[in-house]
Amino acid sequence: MAVYTEVSDEDIDAFVALYDIGAVLSYKGIAEGVENSNYLLHTERGSYILTLYEKRVHAADLPFFLGLMEHLAARGIACPTPIHGRDGLALRILNGRPAALVTFLEGVWIRRPAASHCAALGTALARLHQGGRDYTITRANALGIGGWRTLLDAMGPACNSVSPGLHEELNRELASLEANWPANLPQGVIHADLFPDNVFFIRDKLSGVIDFYFACNDALAYDLAICLNAWCFEADGQLNVTKARALTSAYDADRPLTDAERVALPLLARGAALRFLLTRLHDWLTPAPGALVKPKDPLEYLGKLRFHRTVDSPAAYGLR
Amino acid sequence: MAVYTEVSDEDIDAFVALYDIGAVLSYKGIAEGVENSNYLLHTERGSYILTLYEKRVHAADLPFFLGLMEHLAARGIACPTPIHGRDGLALRILNGRPAALVTFLEGVWIRRPAASHCAALGTALARLHQGGRDYTITRANALGIGGWRTLLDAMGPACNSVSPGLHEELNRELASLEANWPANLPQGVIHADLFPDNVFFIRDKLSGVIDFYFACNDALAYDLAICLNAWCFEADGQLNVTKARALTSAYDADRPLTDAERVALPLLARGAALRFLLTRLHDWLTPAPGALVKPKDPLEYLGKLRFHRTVDSPAAYGLR
Repeated sequence: MAVYTEVSDEDIDAFVALYDIGAVLSYKGIAEGVENSNYLLHTERGSYILTLYEKRVHAADLPFFLGLMEHLAARGIACPTPIHGRDGLALRILNGRPAALVTFLEGVWIRRPAASHCAALGTALARLHQGGRDYTITRANALGIGGWRTLLDAMGPACNSVSPGLHEELNRELASLEANWPANLPQGVIHADLFPDNVFFIRDKLSGVIDFYFACNDALAYDLAICLNAWCFEADGQLNVTKARALTSAYDADRPLTDAERVALPLLARGAALRFLLTRLHDWLTPAPGALVKPKDPLEYLGKLRFHRTVDSPAAYGLR
Repeated sequence: MAVYTEVSDEDIDAFVALYDIGAVLSYKGIAEGVENSNYLLHTERGSYILTLYEKRVHAADLPFFLGLMEHLAARGIACPTPIHGRDGLALRILNGRPAALVTFLEGVWIRRPAASHCAALGTALARLHQGGRDYTITRANALGIGGWRTLLDAMGPACNSVSPGLHEELNRELASLEANWPANLPQGVIHADLFPDNVFFIRDKLSGVIDFYFACNDALAYDLAICLNAWCFEADGQLNVTKARALTSAYDADRPLTDAERVALPLLARGAALRFLLTRLHDWLTPAPGALVKPKDPLEYLGKLRFHRTVDSPAAYGLR
């Protein structure tokens, strides 16, 4: 939770006056979002989110993110839609930060997803992938397999302070992934961070998806693997196969997985686990000064990684 | 800014189901309020604030605060109104904390109040005092003159680390206030913390007053003195007499000040300055562990205190 940049009443009035959304009724800094400052804004026209992008988001990537949300929204995917000012711009500067206004998406994120939520997620993810097919801007996955070596080497043996022998284990794991990573899977725009707090529900119906600030081009099935890790494990570290089946089969029903994707799923799930393990390790070992957010436990993802190493068939994830 | 207690989707659904306000559409922890955890809640029926009261608010005082808001709202004072559940209760327990749901008040607080805002404040304060006249529950002012000695003695010479000689100066000041404090001024319910961030405006019209968690019984004119200090000084430490006149004359027009109140105003303003100086000193010298809020500069109020010592007539505040 965080509001890093304060916005005054005068600044917000002047900013909102550039849009055709009526006058400001209220705005509240909201304790959500690790990366940016977010305000929930009520105007005479409705509810909006005003985001000021902080340092961790590269300004050069913002046209990709905002354009993607607009592209997906136009194709019926429920997600925040950037609002354009009267000058046509959706991205401008506020208090020295890049800033954008998007529609507010009602919904609540589910702390303990059930299989039914995982099924709804699978359908939404498949549609998101299909909706992104004809998006023409591209963005490389800086946190894809090509970036993991740099992350791991930067931490080096310091990893072992979190768990003895971890550095060696991750070196071996990464070498194995690099040697076997599948190159020719269907590619497209992936969300890349579709954790439960980025998926909203109203009365158990999925109402939308938020936070596209890790979106990029990569293997579509890798996005499914990220969701498997984020949604289908229980607090005790065990995979819940019922949830995994709900997720993967709902996805498969909307966008049938190729044989190559099915076979690759255990490896993709190992990679997805390593990716979040590496960034969590990094945040754990080098907490950002002034950060208002407690780092997440990296070892949760070590458990998931080790689990996927024991999997030799996509049937373990409930796939036929 | 703060959310000290996290509330899960399941907890909020169960809580809201006790009220007749429709289903939860969304809820966001908001980065406001030093003392409590606040959520901005959208339901099918409208917008609400859910407050979980943290340790600094005494649970025994909550019926006074909630009852006061309800009392004032019923008399046309724009303020958050507690919502009663189907069981009649407005106060219950959520995640181990006392919790209440109130109507959401639209509006924006003014970072740099102009004289027109001060005038609107004066009118609202007078009406708040009149609206509170027949409120039958009472609450002593724990931070009134009777409580300042304890605060000062607890800090002792540690004050001098903030400003050399401060402890002696405050001892002399407090002795003088204790000897001369007016005893027979009109009493009633005062807000006691009516800083700019607790007063909302929409399009320069005052839309309401929030945060009654310091409200208590005390001299009504003391509340006006608190507002003088909080609204009418410029960043350079000087009183803006135009703003002071706007505030005091608007107040006086709605609730005429007695002669005794006018004469006492410089002394009340010294007391009001000392009260916030003492609590800010306390927060400065002993920051609460886990606090998410930066302590405010105590010396701002030392400057105000010294200014009021130079005042020998209420004319200095623009009063005839």
